[in-house]
Amino acid sequence: MFFASDNWAGAHPLIAESLVKEASGAAAAYGTSDLDRRIEERFNQIFQREVTVFFVGTGTAANSLALASVSRPGGVTFCHSEAHVTADECGAPEFLTGGCRLVRVEGPGGKLDPAALGAAIDRYPPGAVHQGRPMAVTLTQATESGTVYSLAEIEAIGEVARTNGLPLHMDGARFANALVALDATPADMTWKRGVDILSFGGTKNGCWCAEAIVFMKPDMAVDMPFIRKRSAQLFSKTRFIAAQLEAYFEGGLWLDLARHANAMATRLRTGIAASNRGRLAWSTETNEVFAVLSKDAAVIAEGRGARFYDWPVPQELPNLLGENDKLIRLVTSFATTEDEVDRFVEALG
Amino acid sequence: MFFASDNWAGAHPLIAESLVKEASGAAAAYGTSDLDRRIEERFNQIFQREVTVFFVGTGTAANSLALASVSRPGGVTFCHSEAHVTADECGAPEFLTGGCRLVRVEGPGGKLDPAALGAAIDRYPPGAVHQGRPMAVTLTQATESGTVYSLAEIEAIGEVARTNGLPLHMDGARFANALVALDATPADMTWKRGVDILSFGGTKNGCWCAEAIVFMKPDMAVDMPFIRKRSAQLFSKTRFIAAQLEAYFEGGLWLDLARHANAMATRLRTGIAASNRGRLAWSTETNEVFAVLSKDAAVIAEGRGARFYDWPVPQELPNLLGENDKLIRLVTSFATTEDEVDRFVEALG
Amino acid sequence: MFFASDNWAGAHPLIAESLVKEASGAAAAYGTSDLDRRIEERFNQIFQREVTVFFVGTGTAANSLALASVSRPGGVTFCHSEAHVTADECGAPEFLTGGCRLVRVEGPGGKLDPAALGAAIDRYPPGAVHQGRPMAVTLTQATESGTVYSLAEIEAIGEVARTNGLPLHMDGARFANALVALDATPADMTWKRGVDILSFGGTKNGCWCAEAIVFMKPDMAVDMPFIRKRSAQLFSKTRFIAAQLEAYFEGGLWLDLARHANAMATRLRTGIAASNRGRLAWSTETNEVFAVLSKDAAVIAEGRGARFYDWPVPQELPNLLGENDKLIRLVTSFATTEDEVDRFVEALG
Amino acid sequence: MFFASDNWAGAHPLIAESLVKEASGAAAAYGTSDLDRRIEERFNQIFQREVTVFFVGTGTAANSLALASVSRPGGVTFCHSEAHVTADECGAPEFLTGGCRLVRVEGPGGKLDPAALGAAIDRYPPGAVHQGRPMAVTLTQATESGTVYSLAEIEAIGEVARTNGLPLHMDGARFANALVALDATPADMTWKRGVDILSFGGTKNGCWCAEAIVFMKPDMAVDMPFIRKRSAQLFSKTRFIAAQLEAYFEGGLWLDLARHANAMATRLRTGIAASNRGRLAWSTETNEVFAVLSKDAAVIAEGRGARFYDWPVPQELPNLLGENDKLIRLVTSFATTEDEVDRFVEALG
Repeated sequence: MFFASDNWAGAHPLIAESLVKEASGAAAAYGTSDLDRRIEERFNQIFQREVTVFFVGTGTAANSLALASVSRPGGVTFCHSEAHVTADECGAPEFLTGGCRLVRVEGPGGKLDPAALGAAIDRYPPGAVHQGRPMAVTLTQATESGTVYSLAEIEAIGEVARTNGLPLHMDGARFANALVALDATPADMTWKRGVDILSFGGTKNGCWCAEAIVFMKPDMAVDMPFIRKRSAQLFSKTRFIAAQLEAYFEGGLWLDLARHANAMATRLRTGIAASNRGRLAWSTETNEVFAVLSKDAAVIAEGRGARFYDWPVPQELPNLLGENDKLIRLVTSFATTEDEVDRFVEALG
Repeated sequence: MFFASDNWAGAHPLIAESLVKEASGAAAAYGTSDLDRRIEERFNQIFQREVTVFFVGTGTAANSLALASVSRPGGVTFCHSEAHVTADECGAPEFLTGGCRLVRVEGPGGKLDPAALGAAIDRYPPGAVHQGRPMAVTLTQATESGTVYSLAEIEAIGEVARTNGLPLHMDGARFANALVALDATPADMTWKRGVDILSFGGTKNGCWCAEAIVFMKPDMAVDMPFIRKRSAQLFSKTRFIAAQLEAYFEGGLWLDLARHANAMATRLRTGIAASNRGRLAWSTETNEVFAVLSKDAAVIAEGRGARFYDWPVPQELPNLLGENDKLIRLVTSFATTEDEVDRFVEALG
Repeated sequence: MFFASDNWAGAHPLIAESLVKEASGAAAAYGTSDLDRRIEERFNQIFQREVTVFFVGTGTAANSLALASVSRPGGVTFCHSEAHVTADECGAPEFLTGGCRLVRVEGPGGKLDPAALGAAIDRYPPGAVHQGRPMAVTLTQATESGTVYSLAEIEAIGEVARTNGLPLHMDGARFANALVALDATPADMTWKRGVDILSFGGTKNGCWCAEAIVFMKPDMAVDMPFIRKRSAQLFSKTRFIAAQLEAYFEGGLWLDLARHANAMATRLRTGIAASNRGRLAWSTETNEVFAVLSKDAAVIAEGRGARFYDWPVPQELPNLLGENDKLIRLVTSFATTEDEVDRFVEALG
Repeated sequence: MFFASDNWAGAHPLIAESLVKEASGAAAAYGTSDLDRRIEERFNQIFQREVTVFFVGTGTAANSLALASVSRPGGVTFCHSEAHVTADECGAPEFLTGGCRLVRVEGPGGKLDPAALGAAIDRYPPGAVHQGRPMAVTLTQATESGTVYSLAEIEAIGEVARTNGLPLHMDGARFANALVALDATPADMTWKRGVDILSFGGTKNGCWCAEAIVFMKPDMAVDMPFIRKRSAQLFSKTRFIAAQLEAYFEGGLWLDLARHANAMATRLRTGIAASNRGRLAWSTETNEVFAVLSKDAAVIAEGRGARFYDWPVPQELPNLLGENDKLIRLVTSFATTEDEVDRFVEALG
């Protein structure tokens, strides 16, 4: 009953096997092998346009280096107040951009509100050297709250960015989960809505370690080879990432894994909603479930082997919890089983 | 006939299989799983003392973050003029230490000369704020020139560092190759000779991607969890590194692989020395071989499928090459076969 | 009628004359002259303890380097949401600390609320590597809102910092104005209340360019010579700062100048309160006055030569303005005259 | 007999008086006053083209921010091995460019050798991500060795930079001394020879504190307002720099002061050459004199009040000193008198 995070899972068997298959033989290092090229081509197909792809080791690296590629002195990036970049990356975006800042913008359901975003940007009039200057907007799809921006919502954010001349970055640590939730194409969910740079996450969805920065406009990527190398993210045997992604994409495995994780979350939501020891804190659409449990129920569930995280109550929901309640987050993954879900619901009593 | 680099190889089958074995199940993320702990304990045994270990993704990361852990404003690190940190890491050590500098010190055979090192340090008298101040010494074992510091030579460098109150870092991207060349224990080659921090490389010796920073004195490691995270080097599924290292260490596989690579290099040296189309540029002791070929021979060998790098002539050997000669580097690996070596020698004509 | 900022004034005649007086002769550079030493000694007397003083060129430098002196990887500094460090320094603190972050804490009247501060710090539990870790608290005295922390209020903030093991920095760009408003001694307002590092500002109070970082505990200052030099803030002819400060301190000139500026602000407040074209937005105690004017009155005053800044309405006062009102900030200085004040009040109509 | 450095002098009386004159009145802060504008216009006249000027506080700041304005990830700047940027700025250029590196190039007489420069740049082939990439060339005029690049020599360096697509920066801490030594115009010595960015120093030549970054091509300066502010070099009362420069330029004072300093150095050289207790170490053309003294003579001179610095023997002159000799540097300034020079020569015995 492991619901602490989707990164508690290992790797999908096909992905691990792909690493075995590629282990023999020799190939050019540092991202120049045939396999690397093949996967890059695969990204072009998936995104229905010529993109430029850089493998990196962690989601934090993908986000930070994506922002570094558009950083400039005095630069400010606008993100949701609960975004991973500002809440969970120990200042890596600030550090790896050379000191650029993140400004937190509010919005319900973990999503940037376009009006609030526009207002936040307006606080930095052109030439106002003391405040600094806007350099990017970043949104997270799926969000840290388990919700998903609709295509129209992404477009609205994209419009604010475009109007202000700012590049739009998408943190796609759970890109596949959002994609299947919307039943959209990667192109639909990104460049067709104004996204310029994507952190494409594979690790949480069944890879061992496979993250990529995808530039929708290759001419924005000219500095990235140097940014990546000086940030120590250029792997010598990049085939170990490429081989994972080869299996990940093969036959649409990545989408199947995301659909499974989302389905397990739906099963979990249904179970909790039907239980009398807990309730859903808010509605989610991907593989994250936020539940209000009585503290007793939480203790019992943990005693029976359930693993999950306590979660801070969002500012916008000050009255969410009763006196004896707690808010928890449950995350399903490609590896979650129906049995695990059902045992958890049962464990609630 | 792939001799371009030991990172052109893939992974040893036992290491790839270990990733398959660990792929199922769930475990705590970010370096806190049982397997992570077990490998950390294994490092204690290998180094015969309590050490503190941090997995990172690349050798450049290991070197850069090791130096970041001892960095301070105005800090200067002394390295050999051909060291990887200064020649091949695109400024990552400077960037990830927040702007610290590397000062190049000469020495024959790719090794720091203790007297030259001492003299270089002396140019930074205490309190001389304009020059900055020494912060560390780093040496590379095995060196970029294929040579190995003897234990006494490491001790001499360690003594210079100690006398000047500076921590000593060892870049061990080819640690195992040096270890078996010296037939020494890890303890002998590190902390017993004054090494404080080690970049322990597994990637070049048969892993997909397994690098670790090893602190010989755990109290020097207190900032490293934050340094690693803000540098985007904290992997979520660290088990993918731990699982590789489990197989790497099991039954002394790592030493066997290094012995094999070194033996293939010896076979290569013997073959080249006996050939009449090339000669050894200088004597090496690990898995790197530097040869002087006639330009014709090089072209022919490449035409027959040999892969290797041209190499710049060291300043100390200005007369190494005849008019029609070139200097090349050949690197063997765990995956090099006798047949490959013999075919290469044959290809020289 | 220049009320835009206290840095629109030039320098007090005695201070300018001191520069003339010191212009001849020769003296050791880079802060080592007799005059430098004499001023350092003067700081010891003023603060009634052995302090360590570093001259720098700007208030932004003083704040940023003070924070750099306590920075550490993953570090977070807590400041008021309207503090100069976060609102007006273009990311200099983040840049010059090597990427450390500022977390904004609310509080009425431009002052940090101790409870809110404590709660903000508590969101960074020890060892929580993803969030980063607290490194400092900074408060501004006098505040950006023209208010002054009472000694008890400083002590309360100091207590929160102390409890959490954090150094406390005070941005004293208007230190003298606060000091005379409280009728306190420098010691009372700083180290006796828990302040560890002070940005001591002279520029806004009659100097051309004289800022200093004052360490109340000299052992916290050991890295500062290098921090200052690598940040390009070590002046060669530091006498040009020392000479200004010699005149600034002589006979208590600095306190007289601050008293004058504060008195002019009081006169301004009185005048505005009595006028029927404007009112005070909130109560202030130093040389800053915040007034609500009708937009018409503002236009008229500007037409008559008044200079001031529009000011954003604080979040805590959403209903401050009527439909035709605007909020303005007026700042008096050592050079403001009674006549200027009276003409401004008159100009309001 | 103060020959330690030209920054041991104070300020020229006319410059100090200018600060008195400007001390009264009010003017817009942060570089936007009429006086600031007037001085900017003056720079246009002096350089015979539209330039963009940014005042900063120190020569180290001018150099570092100039390089920051052309910095890019993985960037490498080529400088002479004895250049101030690499020898005397505590890593400020590396720190303030966000980790860019300086590569030392040799050349006789403290000057970059164009061939050696070209060869050094060639070691960074396009796309070689491991090494990093060239970003700028910087030369020092006058050099740290007291010599001056001829116009043809600057042009030759400019040609190497241009051929390689690199901006050329000139460290002009002693710009005026070089200018009058060459009897050239500012335009001749800079943009007409390929210089793109100049650190224009006034401090060493009679100002208290007046340094400026001059962009010969204004479109290269677009980021500089933010670079300067986030580096804490935007002064509020920039008039204190502008007022110094007003007097500095008035009636060609700056050139007169430089001529005086150079003439005093000539007198010193003549005196030393004629003395039998010392000799000139090499020929210089500005206000720096390098002399070989017997150790006895040096002790005697210091005993009689002479102040100067010991200087390290350049690598290219290994046999410069006899057993009982030492190398010293003597620097004259606008304030040096004939009497001082004569007394020093006399003091040699």
